[in-house]
Amino acid sequence: MLTLTTLTDPAFCPHSLNKYASLMISGNGYLGVRGTHEEAYTSQTRGMYLAGLYHRAGKNETNELVNLPDTVAIELQLDGEIFTLLAGEIVNWQRELNFADGELRRSVIWRSTAGNRFRIDSRRFASLDQLSLLGLQFSVTPLDAPAQINLSTGIDATQTNCGRQHLDEVSVRVYGEHILQGLYRTQDNAADVVISAFCQLSTASERCFTARNRRLNCHHSLAVPQGETVTLEKIVWVTHRHEQTVSQESFAKKAIVALEHCVAQGYEALLQQNTKAWETVWHRSRVTIDTEEKDDQQALDYAVWHLTAMTPAHDEHCSIAAKGLTGEGYKGHVFWDTEIFLLPYHLLTHPETARNLLRYRWLNLAGAREKARRHGWPGALFPWESAASGNEETPEFAAINIRSGLRQKVASALAEHHIVADIAWAVVTYWHATHDEAFMRKEGLALLIETATFWMGRATEVNGRLEIHDVIGPDEYTEHVNNNAYTNYMAWHNVSQALAFMQMFNHQETSFTPSAQRFLQRLWLPQANEDGVIAQDDTFLSKPVIDLQRYKAQAGKQTILLDFSRAEVNEMQILKQADVVMLNYLLPAHFTLQQCRANLAFYEPRTIHDSSLSKAIHGIVAARCGDIDTAYRFWRDGVKIDLGDDPHSSDDGIHAAATGAIWSGVIQGFAGLDMTDGELRLNPALPTSWQRIRFPLTWRNAQLEVDIENDTITLNSDEPVSLMLWGKPIVVSGRQCWQRKDFNVTEIGTATMEGSNES
Amino acid sequence: MLTLTTLTDPAFCPHSLNKYASLMISGNGYLGVRGTHEEAYTSQTRGMYLAGLYHRAGKNETNELVNLPDTVAIELQLDGEIFTLLAGEIVNWQRELNFADGELRRSVIWRSTAGNRFRIDSRRFASLDQLSLLGLQFSVTPLDAPAQINLSTGIDATQTNCGRQHLDEVSVRVYGEHILQGLYRTQDNAADVVISAFCQLSTASERCFTARNRRLNCHHSLAVPQGETVTLEKIVWVTHRHEQTVSQESFAKKAIVALEHCVAQGYEALLQQNTKAWETVWHRSRVTIDTEEKDDQQALDYAVWHLTAMTPAHDEHCSIAAKGLTGEGYKGHVFWDTEIFLLPYHLLTHPETARNLLRYRWLNLAGAREKARRHGWPGALFPWESAASGNEETPEFAAINIRSGLRQKVASALAEHHIVADIAWAVVTYWHATHDEAFMRKEGLALLIETATFWMGRATEVNGRLEIHDVIGPDEYTEHVNNNAYTNYMAWHNVSQALAFMQMFNHQETSFTPSAQRFLQRLWLPQANEDGVIAQDDTFLSKPVIDLQRYKAQAGKQTILLDFSRAEVNEMQILKQADVVMLNYLLPAHFTLQQCRANLAFYEPRTIHDSSLSKAIHGIVAARCGDIDTAYRFWRDGVKIDLGDDPHSSDDGIHAAATGAIWSGVIQGFAGLDMTDGELRLNPALPTSWQRIRFPLTWRNAQLEVDIENDTITLNSDEPVSLMLWGKPIVVSGRQCWQRKDFNVTEIGTATMEGSNES
Repeated sequence: MLTLTTLTDPAFCPHSLNKYASLMISGNGYLGVRGTHEEAYTSQTRGMYLAGLYHRAGKNETNELVNLPDTVAIELQLDGEIFTLLAGEIVNWQRELNFADGELRRSVIWRSTAGNRFRIDSRRFASLDQLSLLGLQFSVTPLDAPAQINLSTGIDATQTNCGRQHLDEVSVRVYGEHILQGLYRTQDNAADVVISAFCQLSTASERCFTARNRRLNCHHSLAVPQGETVTLEKIVWVTHRHEQTVSQESFAKKAIVALEHCVAQGYEALLQQNTKAWETVWHRSRVTIDTEEKDDQQALDYAVWHLTAMTPAHDEHCSIAAKGLTGEGYKGHVFWDTEIFLLPYHLLTHPETARNLLRYRWLNLAGAREKARRHGWPGALFPWESAASGNEETPEFAAINIRSGLRQKVASALAEHHIVADIAWAVVTYWHATHDEAFMRKEGLALLIETATFWMGRATEVNGRLEIHDVIGPDEYTEHVNNNAYTNYMAWHNVSQALAFMQMFNHQETSFTPSAQRFLQRLWLPQANEDGVIAQDDTFLSKPVIDLQRYKAQAGKQTILLDFSRAEVNEMQILKQADVVMLNYLLPAHFTLQQCRANLAFYEPRTIHDSSLSKAIHGIVAARCGDIDTAYRFWRDGVKIDLGDDPHSSDDGIHAAATGAIWSGVIQGFAGLDMTDGELRLNPALPTSWQRIRFPLTWRNAQLEVDIENDTITLNSDEPVSLMLWGKPIVVSGRQCWQRKDFNVTEIGTATMEGSNES
Repeated sequence: MLTLTTLTDPAFCPHSLNKYASLMISGNGYLGVRGTHEEAYTSQTRGMYLAGLYHRAGKNETNELVNLPDTVAIELQLDGEIFTLLAGEIVNWQRELNFADGELRRSVIWRSTAGNRFRIDSRRFASLDQLSLLGLQFSVTPLDAPAQINLSTGIDATQTNCGRQHLDEVSVRVYGEHILQGLYRTQDNAADVVISAFCQLSTASERCFTARNRRLNCHHSLAVPQGETVTLEKIVWVTHRHEQTVSQESFAKKAIVALEHCVAQGYEALLQQNTKAWETVWHRSRVTIDTEEKDDQQALDYAVWHLTAMTPAHDEHCSIAAKGLTGEGYKGHVFWDTEIFLLPYHLLTHPETARNLLRYRWLNLAGAREKARRHGWPGALFPWESAASGNEETPEFAAINIRSGLRQKVASALAEHHIVADIAWAVVTYWHATHDEAFMRKEGLALLIETATFWMGRATEVNGRLEIHDVIGPDEYTEHVNNNAYTNYMAWHNVSQALAFMQMFNHQETSFTPSAQRFLQRLWLPQANEDGVIAQDDTFLSKPVIDLQRYKAQAGKQTILLDFSRAEVNEMQILKQADVVMLNYLLPAHFTLQQCRANLAFYEPRTIHDSSLSKAIHGIVAARCGDIDTAYRFWRDGVKIDLGDDPHSSDDGIHAAATGAIWSGVIQGFAGLDMTDGELRLNPALPTSWQRIRFPLTWRNAQLEVDIENDTITLNSDEPVSLMLWGKPIVVSGRQCWQRKDFNVTEIGTATMEGSNES
């Protein structure tokens, strides 16, 4: 097994139960099981979610990731005392998630209120090898005296999403001596979920089963001698289906067969197979750093682990939820986060997964077309939030204002149209990284043309030029503006790339080409002023500026909204995240380094970073501008979004996009990788506290190893690859080494960026 | 305030949380709020229910009493530590429900894990004066040092019935500085629920409101000096409606006005008004005993308190749930328990409530007729389980057999037809107790004729006599039998009384009378054998007998079903409760004392008493037979059903019928009251440990006081009342005294019973 870092839950603390439940999930892209303790705590939110399994629980509700019946809970009684770490004494505590294989282990020595010590150990993993499989082990050892042990566990369908129930219990069954099974169906009749669980103790016990009030349980009761360990092995098999091709009964029977096959192998063997699957992942994507800052390596392992656990690589019908499969935040909906913050990782490590994620959008084109049509536009207007279908899932109205009783229309779905261009950007970037012609001819072109068509209809003619009015850029603190720089440039890029790829693939569409050309000639692109600053929109620069220090100190908490209404915030130079910096990041070839620096310097003081997407992008742009110290500071702040000290930072799930940004910050920031104009560029410059970074890279047909150690870069490629290193073209084949001093790099980053500008 | 007993929760114990939550509800017949602690515990089931508010949560589900959003919960943090009695140390503990006014008080001195002591006191009541009102007070005093206190409370709509959600959240609002309001609607759109809550701290605090995920909360944060007490006053107003006559908004506004009116008075004044209302109840119904057995007085106060708290006296559209408003057992459905076990109490203390309960049946005649029709019978077949309408609510299928996967049809709804005659018996008894002509002419006659008509169609002609086939008597361990003695006698009584009352009220129904007369002449009534034993049904006596000692030792737990299938139990002489003893109890005039004794002696050894209804009836019959020691033993066992040591006896609610039986056991057992043939009879014989019992009695237009002290009985009546005392007719007017020695009572009970037989 690879030696990787682990994530440690430093101490049992009632305040941080949900943070660690999110950080320490068992997940494999199909299922995510929150890392809750086996014993219950009132403030602990249990959760098991399946990628793509959404349902709407009632009127006024939206589709949300369904919280499934729980299989993790174990009620343990030791000599009649209900085991809880709130009572008694924790003599010893260890809990960690091992990134090498995703196994979560806890080992506790606990003194009961009656005074006897017990060792209570548990292990758990969701198999990356068999996606339906969750393995659990739970052991109890009475250390000071023999003990009467009662242990109950099973399948608990009283789980809800904060009180919203999605599932009808169809039936519960017990097979043989050890297998429990529950069949559930979403209340709209659209999907079946079957949960099967094998439970066996290592020692003979009195045993009985109960089924009552949506709880199917197996109860064990036994006397355990002092010093002896009794272990519960629980193997769980979770499946669901949307199409009822065979009877529910035979679907359920198949699950039993699969479960029994797993049971025959046992926890250890199943874990081993899972570990092997993780080895493949790590082989293709681990980033290794040499540094004294040990948390940095952990952050990268954390990121790659979660990027794997959150991604439904197996199923192109779903994409990545904003909180992955770790919690119920944002209802499990899919945002632009996938294309902009998560896709780069997949593109450069698992391009087949990147393809699936783009196929998800392609499969949902009908919904996007329908949304455009509904609003009177041509082409495809992708939903701001989506779930299993391409339908817009953004709630029509925001949460009620509890003071006024009014519900505001949610503006994002109505105006945050940049997602259309973001998806097009992702398609183009996919092409650059893969040169996947088959995809481009079919899905790629369809996506580019439909999105470009949207923009051509979306623009408005004003005084002889085209403008884009009434949009919201990524900065959601500035609503309903005209000529948002981010949107206009991205729309321009969208249409120009559609045109370029149509030409490249000889795609005939007589009316499109001249329209597109006119659009490109006439669309207004806000220009940099003499300092290099680009106005975020038509009115932004005319708004008043206020001191944001105290809000910036609470970045991510939206404390500004406690002092000002949204309408007031809208009328000041206050950014949630900086659109122009974001734009500089996505389309570096369009801007000079001086412009990037100017925009960073101008907008950062005006940015609260209330979006978890903000700092990471600032960091990458800072790195490209050669300010590695600032870049590193931003990167560390990004890491702290989930891994920092705030015990409630991640209660309703980790920040998936921020996880992608941890990886991107290193690869696109410190390694200086850029591919947005079709060239692979590397322009490495490490933080002063780092001596070395190494990472694998998939680039078109080649598999590269990148090893950057101080001013030396070693590349190893299994195929010849052309790329720009520190601004100069090189070709790598096999293992080769370069010294930075051999390149004419006057200032970190400059060469590359100027190179871009020339292209 | 009257001095009554209290119910004490002896110690904080995680195992008995739900028992005391059921026993210690705040209730007033309109709402019932489980006596859960303010702080959360995982094994504690919160609940608030409104009489008559039922809803079906999904496919395969039945209508159930809706568990409403919670208003009791308070999260308290003391210097950052979440308050829970599982941690730290309980230095002092007191918790009791005061029967005089229904106030639940807890006073705890708790040492935090950080070592500082706090006094934490709470009080709570549901007002009997204003049924929508729930008052709460919660105080914290830091005893050892100043403390930072955080306190959150509000309206929590994440509550479900074991995972079944019934309510959509329509809106949540905050009014002014202290009022929260949540509007909810049942998912079938049939009913609105509005919960309004005023929350104010006695000391200024930082305060904010949050509304998220079906939780509307008010958060307080403040520093409290050592020794100072901060008190939260929370006044809650709960309303619902089935008819949407005005807009939901104005319905909600009205609730705010009502709440503000209460708030202006404050907790103490509101409590006082509630206490006054309880004084009226106690005045009309308290039973006082002089005895060294102090638990006996408590049991009677407990019974009368709960009989009041469970009964929707305000609304004839609902009746009494099997668990009252204390929990979700039996889904809150209404059974024969109401007429047979609960009505006698109301008849003799609050006849207007008894009238409402019978009106509930009358209002639901349409459903009963429809059920009869569906099965091919005439008249009215009342549902075995009912809720808000007269529809049959018994689930069609029993819980799944987790082994076979099969669901058996539930037999009760199909065959437990005696409920029809039970309701008729209740109507007749109501007449005896009230001589309410208006009721009898309209509702009473309708009920008697429709029920009698059912029996006339239900009987089958066999060899020249009428038999009743394929029924289940009260003894549910013996299914699908012919000529169940209980059913046949009760049906005969039903038809004969219908005929008698038709004649009494000159009701013309040409075809009914001759049919009824034929039915009465020809219906087979199983006769006593030479020992006096009446066969429970055609085949019972031919079945084998087994030793039931070990099952009887676990009475109420249905342990027999762990060893035998229901089908096997059906083929043995095994009773859940004794039908013939029950019959002897209800229709004493039909049986000699010798027969009653014989049946008691024969059936009791064959009865496990797995029904909570069983022992109490045995007790009353034993008392009538003169065996007061046995009667007292049965009565004490009946008391222990809820008040005994089993920490889980009442988890999903108290046993409402058993509560009625505590009262009946004393009044009908030891005071020997009987009115089933239209005469008021008293035949007192106290348990040896009791010196005196006193109780008020409403009899027709008279208000009586009964005072039995050893062998002396003092009666005080505000109107002349004729009755039979120890078998001899007397007339009471004003206060009069009788000595037992002046009556020719050779054996306790004999005179009365023979008296009955002569009538």
